[in-house]
Amino acid sequence: MTLKILFDGGADRWPDYRDPLTAALAAAGIDAEIRLDWPPAEVDYIIYAPRDTPTDFSPFTRAKAVLNLWAGVEKITGNPTLTQPLTRMVDTGLTEGMVEYVTGHVLRHHLGMDAHIVNPDHTWHWAPPPLARNRPVTVLGLGELGSACARALAALNFPVTGWSRSQKDIEGVTCLSGDDGLARALSTAEILVLLLPDTPATTNLMDADRLAALPEGAVIVNPGRGPLIDDDALIAALDRGHVGHATLDVFRVEPLPADHPFWAHPKVTITPHVASETRADTASEVVAENIRRSEAGEPLLFRVDRDAGY
Amino acid sequence: MTLKILFDGGADRWPDYRDPLTAALAAAGIDAEIRLDWPPAEVDYIIYAPRDTPTDFSPFTRAKAVLNLWAGVEKITGNPTLTQPLTRMVDTGLTEGMVEYVTGHVLRHHLGMDAHIVNPDHTWHWAPPPLARNRPVTVLGLGELGSACARALAALNFPVTGWSRSQKDIEGVTCLSGDDGLARALSTAEILVLLLPDTPATTNLMDADRLAALPEGAVIVNPGRGPLIDDDALIAALDRGHVGHATLDVFRVEPLPADHPFWAHPKVTITPHVASETRADTASEVVAENIRRSEAGEPLLFRVDRDAGY
Repeated sequence: MTLKILFDGGADRWPDYRDPLTAALAAAGIDAEIRLDWPPAEVDYIIYAPRDTPTDFSPFTRAKAVLNLWAGVEKITGNPTLTQPLTRMVDTGLTEGMVEYVTGHVLRHHLGMDAHIVNPDHTWHWAPPPLARNRPVTVLGLGELGSACARALAALNFPVTGWSRSQKDIEGVTCLSGDDGLARALSTAEILVLLLPDTPATTNLMDADRLAALPEGAVIVNPGRGPLIDDDALIAALDRGHVGHATLDVFRVEPLPADHPFWAHPKVTITPHVASETRADTASEVVAENIRRSEAGEPLLFRVDRDAGY
Repeated sequence: MTLKILFDGGADRWPDYRDPLTAALAAAGIDAEIRLDWPPAEVDYIIYAPRDTPTDFSPFTRAKAVLNLWAGVEKITGNPTLTQPLTRMVDTGLTEGMVEYVTGHVLRHHLGMDAHIVNPDHTWHWAPPPLARNRPVTVLGLGELGSACARALAALNFPVTGWSRSQKDIEGVTCLSGDDGLARALSTAEILVLLLPDTPATTNLMDADRLAALPEGAVIVNPGRGPLIDDDALIAALDRGHVGHATLDVFRVEPLPADHPFWAHPKVTITPHVASETRADTASEVVAENIRRSEAGEPLLFRVDRDAGY
């Protein structure tokens, strides 16, 4: 019987996904028809992208899973109408893009590039940076993205400390967990990379106290989630010089409102949520594999633990 | 007998080198005294840094080798008074620093960072970059520095083409040589990294014709040697938009003169010869090892072929 698949990932993204999804489903041996709308009670699977207005999942009475196209699921996990299994997207393209963004911006701050990119007085100031092996970097969050970034930075000789809720073990990375571990991880972080999920436990994790626990002049790179940082505390820490710079890709409200003080702050670089995105071709393969698994009674890949929130 | 070693690396650098050199020589079991001056006819080894005014090596009648502290030797190879063996510096710190500079600036251009670092209108323009796997990079020069950079870029998924005078073989890198190879290497170079030595054969290698052979909008990163590029041809190529940007660390005259058109050019980033430098601790170990080898009658490391010029 032909499966009825709803593409609820946004009509604007449908042109990018139609061909890769069709091909991936065929390659997985799945007989399916994908549409932008179906009568809800007939839908077998929902391919989904989160939005600010919660979706009412209750009419989808026969849907077997909600397959999220994004890594972040914080806009869905609290939705009481969602009773089906939910999967996050873990896509090789997403991981690669994140590694490139994080490695690039860590090297940018390590090398002090901005002083050369913006040099209106044409100053020739010879001051070579230290070697990466003398520049400790900390990554908070060691999921798919965080651990890939930690490995890439360690491969460039940065001494990398990683911190996560549950203890991890990554070769070449000093892995810490727990409250004591967090304090240690922050204390050495000349460059701090935030790749934690957005959960009640991580909201405002980087508050005034934890910002003060960073080394003087530390740089923050946040391609994770906006609420991980207390915005006002960050601005205060930048203003008094304790935090040297912040490069932010994610915000509580996006696009970042024109009147937000981050825009005009000389020690803040804003990138418009481009650190990484799901790529239609690689993501389609993950979606098709999960539908194949579901139909075969096998466990889903990247299923969300809705109590943990990710 | 105590060897008499002349430190001719500049009085300003001597404080950095005194302790590491003394320690490295002792560790190598060499009985030596290092001074900033000795009667020339008594000197056994010369630890050297190049300068614009050629040194007259002829009074150093018993010197067994000139041990250069820099990777570049173009200011020495043509010196007719130098009859002793000459070695280049190949230092792990130098290589690491170069890999960090090249990887950082390639990622900067790949990710289009400058548009976020300098964004006076506070534009939120969502335009994620392609993945590195879709961004071909070419490295000209596959010596110690070039091959290390090519490997690091390949590890980040960039499709890397390398070109050198003699054919090389580097895993994960498309290695080309010869004139046909150069034309192919340039034709795909969305980002071009120059790490060739400065020799008569490489002077103005990147002339108007070869700049025109690059893909439209290509970016050039030159941490190699200033004369590799024809400055006027580069400015012309930038002005007509064929070359998108140039990040230059080395120049025909350094510091770059205040009236040089590179300073004010909006598509040129100048870094003040900081891509990499010899590190006193690791370099001292190389110097001590070469003195040990010379005294033991073993071949010197990194000996310069003065006909080839490097």
